[in-house]
Amino acid sequence: MIKYYTMTKDIIINPKGFLYAVESASIKKAGNRDIAIIHSEVPCVVSGVFTCNKVKAAPVLLDMERVQSGSASSVVINSGNANACTGKQGMEDAILMADTLAQALGVERQSTLVASTGVIGQVMPMEKIVPAIKRATGLLGKHTALDAAQAIMTTDTFPKIMSIGNSTGAIIGISKGAGMIHPNMATTLTFIMTDFAITKVTLDRLLKEAVDRSFNRITVDGDMSTNDTVLVLANGLSGNTDAEAFADGLNTITEGLAKMVVKDGEGATKVFTVRIKNAKTHTEADRFARTVANSPLVKTAMYGKDANWGRIISALGYAGPDFNPENTDIYFDDILIAKGGISMYADKEAELVLNQNEFDIIIDLHMGQAQAHIVTCDLTEEYIRINGAYRT
Amino acid sequence: MIKYYTMTKDIIINPKGFLYAVESASIKKAGNRDIAIIHSEVPCVVSGVFTCNKVKAAPVLLDMERVQSGSASSVVINSGNANACTGKQGMEDAILMADTLAQALGVERQSTLVASTGVIGQVMPMEKIVPAIKRATGLLGKHTALDAAQAIMTTDTFPKIMSIGNSTGAIIGISKGAGMIHPNMATTLTFIMTDFAITKVTLDRLLKEAVDRSFNRITVDGDMSTNDTVLVLANGLSGNTDAEAFADGLNTITEGLAKMVVKDGEGATKVFTVRIKNAKTHTEADRFARTVANSPLVKTAMYGKDANWGRIISALGYAGPDFNPENTDIYFDDILIAKGGISMYADKEAELVLNQNEFDIIIDLHMGQAQAHIVTCDLTEEYIRINGAYRT
Repeated sequence: MIKYYTMTKDIIINPKGFLYAVESASIKKAGNRDIAIIHSEVPCVVSGVFTCNKVKAAPVLLDMERVQSGSASSVVINSGNANACTGKQGMEDAILMADTLAQALGVERQSTLVASTGVIGQVMPMEKIVPAIKRATGLLGKHTALDAAQAIMTTDTFPKIMSIGNSTGAIIGISKGAGMIHPNMATTLTFIMTDFAITKVTLDRLLKEAVDRSFNRITVDGDMSTNDTVLVLANGLSGNTDAEAFADGLNTITEGLAKMVVKDGEGATKVFTVRIKNAKTHTEADRFARTVANSPLVKTAMYGKDANWGRIISALGYAGPDFNPENTDIYFDDILIAKGGISMYADKEAELVLNQNEFDIIIDLHMGQAQAHIVTCDLTEEYIRINGAYRT
Repeated sequence: MIKYYTMTKDIIINPKGFLYAVESASIKKAGNRDIAIIHSEVPCVVSGVFTCNKVKAAPVLLDMERVQSGSASSVVINSGNANACTGKQGMEDAILMADTLAQALGVERQSTLVASTGVIGQVMPMEKIVPAIKRATGLLGKHTALDAAQAIMTTDTFPKIMSIGNSTGAIIGISKGAGMIHPNMATTLTFIMTDFAITKVTLDRLLKEAVDRSFNRITVDGDMSTNDTVLVLANGLSGNTDAEAFADGLNTITEGLAKMVVKDGEGATKVFTVRIKNAKTHTEADRFARTVANSPLVKTAMYGKDANWGRIISALGYAGPDFNPENTDIYFDDILIAKGGISMYADKEAELVLNQNEFDIIIDLHMGQAQAHIVTCDLTEEYIRINGAYRT
């Protein structure tokens, strides 16, 4: 297992005006916290990015509609049940969660958002969830963003939290995610809170860019979830309107959280980045990087610390775009393992690289000037154990 | 593990005029047979289907050229080294294997074919292979097709052999393959020998059709090999020119061998078929079936005997084509687990199905009349162990 990786030992900076509460609704094991509430004392500008999966969970559909208005103040999140593939009942339940929160907080109905994560295809135990939301609102301010990060975990082995800034402007983010993380989607559940003052138009643009650079560049198992959501709430309480400073902070937070999610990839022992260099186009570079990063044979070789570059070049071969294997160089970090598609017999040197917890696979195609990278993890027996027994 | 599945206990019918020999070249562990020779006493009509991977091993490139002539008599196969990503040296070695065989047998150079399977990216130990080929030719007729099927195994746990017919016309096939089996390719190594008298044009057509119906409908891990080859040698010695009878037999053999390959999928405990019904087009049905069959989360759920249909509908959602989850029914064999995208809460009944070694996942999209199926296996800890340690 990768060692504990979070920012909890550092000082957590909380943006002005954001309050948190957690509670147990006994969706997960009795007593485990599975409800989290995030609330801003003043209305926020809101932006969201959502899963590309054609099957979208009820709370995703609800939030997609609500973020269009550009304003929100509060979010309720539950873990243990994804409220996905639950039909009309599912949408009624998502709305009931939002309404319960709005009523308990005394805010407008349209200003509350909902997110759910957990098992798909089971109706939500609303008789337990509604009272838990009410209890939680009474606890607002008694808990922290770290408590919220813990309450939204499912197969996660550690809470994911990161913050940046100071009293002149701060950003904090929490994520949930360990498997089913696929590129080209919003990925996992992520909630970012800031007291920067940012307009809706700018926030939408900056969030899209930040997600493209972070969550859209990671993959664990190539599966894509029905629930993935990234929300940003900006309440403006710092008065700071410096969008550039905000963008820098936002990118740092999303990249940091995305990497934590990969590090916590179900059963992962290693994180590696597949970097394609000198491809013809960015699209082709991206295609090559994703195919190598998602190959089970490459992932298991990395787990076995086996510098089996043959599996890498074989994956390039079925990625789709044309390339010349006889003009392709492959490195593990700075160790050239294959030059022009031929072994350099550097397995021993490469093994030193593969013994690390983090490294790069660099593939130089010598075809053009485009590049792309994908961050991923190895595939282990533990992944099978977790996912073979997830519901039991 | 799936129990031993081969036809060895049945009578093996060998087509007239085909001889076999096996030998050890110590490419694999010393003493293990890793060289096989297949030889027809008279020249054969030959046809081949090869990997779609853009990275093709040297013997694949050699055979692709040679089968165009339409005639061949002999094949030499080695296991333990794939002779892939070995550059010019690799092609010289493949030609040397073919030439060594031709010389030892006293046949024309162009009438010999070569196939290799094993590790990628390492130069062939020709100093051991050349003498072993010579020794093997002296043993022709002392061994059987089953011996050949055993000699070409790598991570296979059992030899794959199947025969059909009688003295008026017979077909026999052997396959090697256990992982890296991807649809839309020729898949694995397969050699089919027959004494039917079939023209080159007909043989090419029938082989393509047979492979489309068998090897192109299976998947183990979504990875695609550099070496996959299906060769058919037809020597006409039965005098039987009934192409229809031959086609029937060929389809039976290729479907049987393809299923054996899935059953031997690395670490597999279950074989299941994903059947898409009532899609808009065959292409879309195929896309849905492949995406579900390749989803690691679906594969691990099947391993865990977990009727987790949410993972199935989620995989449909990222397959690409449009569909309506709220109009989708999912069955495990005849158990309806989700109707209109909503749970039927039939998990207990479904578990009885999932306890079997073989079952179907049937997905009815209610959109049109097209259908497609893909045969695949579950994903287990054993797959990781095999592939994490393959080269050690």
